[in-house]
Amino acid sequence: MTILYAADPEDAEGWIGSIRALDPQLTFATWPDWGDPDAIDFIIVGGRMPGDLSIFQNAKAIQSTWAGVNHLLKGKFPPGVPIARMVDQGLSANMVEYLVYWVLDALRQGRELRAAQREAKWLELPLRWARNFPVGILGLGTLGAATAAKLVELGFPVRGWSRTAKSVAGVESFHGADQLHDFLAPLKLLICLLPLTPETEGVLDAKLFAGLPEGAILVNAGRGGHTNEADLIAALDSGKLAYAVLDVFREEPLPLDHVFWRRKDIVITPHVASITRAGTGAADILENYRRALAGEPLLNPVDPQRGY
Amino acid sequence: MTILYAADPEDAEGWIGSIRALDPQLTFATWPDWGDPDAIDFIIVGGRMPGDLSIFQNAKAIQSTWAGVNHLLKGKFPPGVPIARMVDQGLSANMVEYLVYWVLDALRQGRELRAAQREAKWLELPLRWARNFPVGILGLGTLGAATAAKLVELGFPVRGWSRTAKSVAGVESFHGADQLHDFLAPLKLLICLLPLTPETEGVLDAKLFAGLPEGAILVNAGRGGHTNEADLIAALDSGKLAYAVLDVFREEPLPLDHVFWRRKDIVITPHVASITRAGTGAADILENYRRALAGEPLLNPVDPQRGY
Repeated sequence: MTILYAADPEDAEGWIGSIRALDPQLTFATWPDWGDPDAIDFIIVGGRMPGDLSIFQNAKAIQSTWAGVNHLLKGKFPPGVPIARMVDQGLSANMVEYLVYWVLDALRQGRELRAAQREAKWLELPLRWARNFPVGILGLGTLGAATAAKLVELGFPVRGWSRTAKSVAGVESFHGADQLHDFLAPLKLLICLLPLTPETEGVLDAKLFAGLPEGAILVNAGRGGHTNEADLIAALDSGKLAYAVLDVFREEPLPLDHVFWRRKDIVITPHVASITRAGTGAADILENYRRALAGEPLLNPVDPQRGY
Repeated sequence: MTILYAADPEDAEGWIGSIRALDPQLTFATWPDWGDPDAIDFIIVGGRMPGDLSIFQNAKAIQSTWAGVNHLLKGKFPPGVPIARMVDQGLSANMVEYLVYWVLDALRQGRELRAAQREAKWLELPLRWARNFPVGILGLGTLGAATAAKLVELGFPVRGWSRTAKSVAGVESFHGADQLHDFLAPLKLLICLLPLTPETEGVLDAKLFAGLPEGAILVNAGRGGHTNEADLIAALDSGKLAYAVLDVFREEPLPLDHVFWRRKDIVITPHVASITRAGTGAADILENYRRALAGEPLLNPVDPQRGY
């Protein structure tokens, strides 16, 4: 009866301490010092696969400390073991903050004001109203719905798109490939919060950008794999997109020689939009441990078929 | 029975059109073509005094299209005429947006990320939590209370200070000179939204900064007259303040040779936090016109003794 902690080593103390604070009786091992693999009944994983997990034949569940788990699904697990991801309040609050920040930066023209200050220019930009600044969110999961709700409160017209029909109060909802272009047509700013799946890989491409109005703004807080990088550069060069804010990249850290670093119309944030931290998710993990041992369905289960 | 429009000429069409849309019977004159001064029974003023208004002996009220009216109080009015200022939803929403934007920029370290990008540096800053980032608001009027409420919703601990005791849900409130230092002690970020009065002139000075923790951030969206400029520079130089965001200045536009332009630790926004626009305030103006003619107390009256 040992929980194997195989997530990010620098967070080990925080996570294990937070879970132990809730149940001091638990036994932990940390990767790669697991001792007898057959004693491991629960595995906590993080942002990367630590290695082959299929040797832990008695593991009853895999719990990720991350919300996005597509990187895990290529890994090796004991056959049929259920996987859960992290969907906690803290994670959602961070993402909402990050996205509200960049939407307000766009509305209040932070970039233009910073440029004006560099030239000591008193630039009295006409005040723009949130109500005339439609924001679209690709992906209406936990994070998308929470972000939409906050933007609605701030007076923005918010549109949401998801694979299947979803309803969020105050949000004009669209779904499926057929409605994607209607969804995009009036947007001043598009946020990507989709899960990364074979269907959504490279979804931020020339075809999608073509559906946006001239001069729209893109914020990708989903996954780097959503971005078709060549198409993004072309859309920026043509003026179709005014600029892009990217928190996620196909390779992270973004390589030093990557063209994105040198573009004034790409804002790079180093995958900092949201990170689950020990303390906020410990209770969910403990509950899933209990459920795993009891053979009950996990909180926030991952469907390997869907990919999230 | 004529309303004299003596506010900003470029807004004349908007304001007059918006008010006429609500009551097409009204007669307007625009400064300086007022015809018979005795026919003027109501005067709309804006960001500056257009001239001596004391010749309009039959004016029943003066209505400002601005929230801050200290610049008007030095002007000449018919004796005893009541003055009202603008406190409308749109104005409040703009100010809330502006301040939430700069609080999120501070929390999410937009400045550090922009500096890192200029050096192509992947800077994984530790994520900071709103709940560990106390924000203080000097001034708990309409704008201060609305801003406080939004910051509370976003999870920030919010403290408010006002001249006399006020209560805002979820906000730790302080009042009077005696409680100012208790109010300041834990703040990561201080917002000034005070009215400008003889008592608050130069309130952002060395004595106040001394009450803040090392490395605090200042946002002045009140009036330029609140800032003791020499003390601000000294507080930035000593590291007492990390940086300041200023929307208001003693002289506007900020003169080209002003030292503020050249400081990396001062963010200049050209008095754009909030401007009342025609359309959102027309109903309040019309209501005050009705009240003025009926001899009833005005909405949002200005107390010349207090100065706001």
